[in-house]
Amino acid sequence: MDSTRGEFALIERFFKERGIKRADVPISVGDDAAILAPPANSHLAVTTDTMVSGVHFDAHTPIDALGHKLAAVNLSDLAAMGAEPAWASLALTLPDFDETWLDQFSRGLIETLDYHHCSLIGGDITRGPLTLTLTVHGFVPKDRYLLRSGAQPGDRIYVSGTLGDAALALALQQDKLSVACDISVREALNERLFRPTPRVMLGTLIRNQANSAIDLSDGLAGDLKHILTASKVGARIDLGLLPRSDAFAASVSLEQGWPYQLVGGDDYELCFTVPEGRRGAFETISRQAGVAVTAIGVIEREPGLRFIHAGKEIQCDHLSYSHF
Amino acid sequence: MDSTRGEFALIERFFKERGIKRADVPISVGDDAAILAPPANSHLAVTTDTMVSGVHFDAHTPIDALGHKLAAVNLSDLAAMGAEPAWASLALTLPDFDETWLDQFSRGLIETLDYHHCSLIGGDITRGPLTLTLTVHGFVPKDRYLLRSGAQPGDRIYVSGTLGDAALALALQQDKLSVACDISVREALNERLFRPTPRVMLGTLIRNQANSAIDLSDGLAGDLKHILTASKVGARIDLGLLPRSDAFAASVSLEQGWPYQLVGGDDYELCFTVPEGRRGAFETISRQAGVAVTAIGVIEREPGLRFIHAGKEIQCDHLSYSHF
Repeated sequence: MDSTRGEFALIERFFKERGIKRADVPISVGDDAAILAPPANSHLAVTTDTMVSGVHFDAHTPIDALGHKLAAVNLSDLAAMGAEPAWASLALTLPDFDETWLDQFSRGLIETLDYHHCSLIGGDITRGPLTLTLTVHGFVPKDRYLLRSGAQPGDRIYVSGTLGDAALALALQQDKLSVACDISVREALNERLFRPTPRVMLGTLIRNQANSAIDLSDGLAGDLKHILTASKVGARIDLGLLPRSDAFAASVSLEQGWPYQLVGGDDYELCFTVPEGRRGAFETISRQAGVAVTAIGVIEREPGLRFIHAGKEIQCDHLSYSHF
Repeated sequence: MDSTRGEFALIERFFKERGIKRADVPISVGDDAAILAPPANSHLAVTTDTMVSGVHFDAHTPIDALGHKLAAVNLSDLAAMGAEPAWASLALTLPDFDETWLDQFSRGLIETLDYHHCSLIGGDITRGPLTLTLTVHGFVPKDRYLLRSGAQPGDRIYVSGTLGDAALALALQQDKLSVACDISVREALNERLFRPTPRVMLGTLIRNQANSAIDLSDGLAGDLKHILTASKVGARIDLGLLPRSDAFAASVSLEQGWPYQLVGGDDYELCFTVPEGRRGAFETISRQAGVAVTAIGVIEREPGLRFIHAGKEIQCDHLSYSHF
């Protein structure tokens, strides 16, 4: 991490001295590069995600939640590959050197990294418009990684957790929707927006059963289409099966909820496909993952994404959602 | 890389289809994470550097040079560890999706990565204030990495190339200094500011001889102090020995040049220490590096950094330079 000498001590306190130490990190923050010892017979999974102030978050987001979310969205990508998190590198651009901000941000970041046994190994802190970038590294046993391209006709399509909570929270926050709901319901929805849970354990558990996987960052419809395109297949989703949280169900009707569930984004659940013959083993194993999984549809030979409800095809033309 | 569908094709053209393919990258841009195969019996070196518009560069910088420099400053950190570059991950935040800008930037970036056999394996493109972050990965044979902390009293201190050119170019550009010099001299200095050369080959060649190393990004005085602090030693530098380029020597006197050489920054040369007993082997081997090396001083037991010239001690109190 580069910075003036006066700030070295603070950076050390906030980023270097906090967090777990791993035996496979001989040299961490403080030299020109970190030195890492990857395990034998493993592939390394590497992913990078950036969050920009005013684009991906605003002043509503608690500062520690920013740190948490930066870790979570990156760990979610590792989960979608079936990888076990190991190392993270932070690039932080800050308008000024605000000690309180750095304390809260680093606390949220490192708590979440620690929880997944992921060590902060270095990075760069620069002055400029608030921009947060994390690169995370994980391990996956050789050739056991999950891709978007493995889905086969007949595979069941699963999602973890529930869909639409974060998008609904954002709509309520931005007054795009008005719903008379309890403060506890609002809080439950906000929690899903500010503190998504990366499905790391689930990702590693399904490595041997799933044919394909992706994490849901931009909404089920758009993200599932990445699987369909990469796998050269189509899919049929039963909208009545999309999992809803209690808070979500207390706020919107089934049909009202679909846009949030299909194109809202920010769910950070996993979407994956499992062949019929491995469903038994998969459903047994997935019980250890600490999160429910729901079968919502099936992969079909015919290209395209089709939605049904109560036996009838439903048109959903407002697909995908983008940060760019 | 995340972005809307309309832009996927352009990103593929600019970043995915350009550049070398490496056999140790089974999965590159296009899934949730890249999948990499680290070599056996090697340590992995990982470093991240960010460049922010208005802080680290301005409109004077040619766009392809931005791409080049982002690669170069990161590869320079790998060189300082003695690591051989392998993989790079890009986080690009852009105010708008400008095809010409992306074409020129990616060309500069990938040409420089290619030259060092480093493959772009993924990243994230987001909208926001112009911020460029690269994370690079390199290999170093197990336990053969170079650190800042290995310097020993009696070690000779070396630098590669010449010092001060980039800082002088910047001062001339910003009208902080007025010098009557040829256009060819100005161009030579600008080239060093816009297109620094990471000393990658030198870094790998000195692994077995050097006791410590750092790359010069913030100026010799500040960066050498990192070695002294980490190694718990001091040093004496002979200012008359600091290597000057022809363009530098044509522009400023010896004394005038010292501030640019000591605290100017942006040299991206290596500074390293070699014990007396390995100097013969080192100087022979270093001839293969394609860049001159110059002995400029010696590591001493007494803490602190001392400067001499013509046998007399010189006071240099304006030390270090920071981007933050």
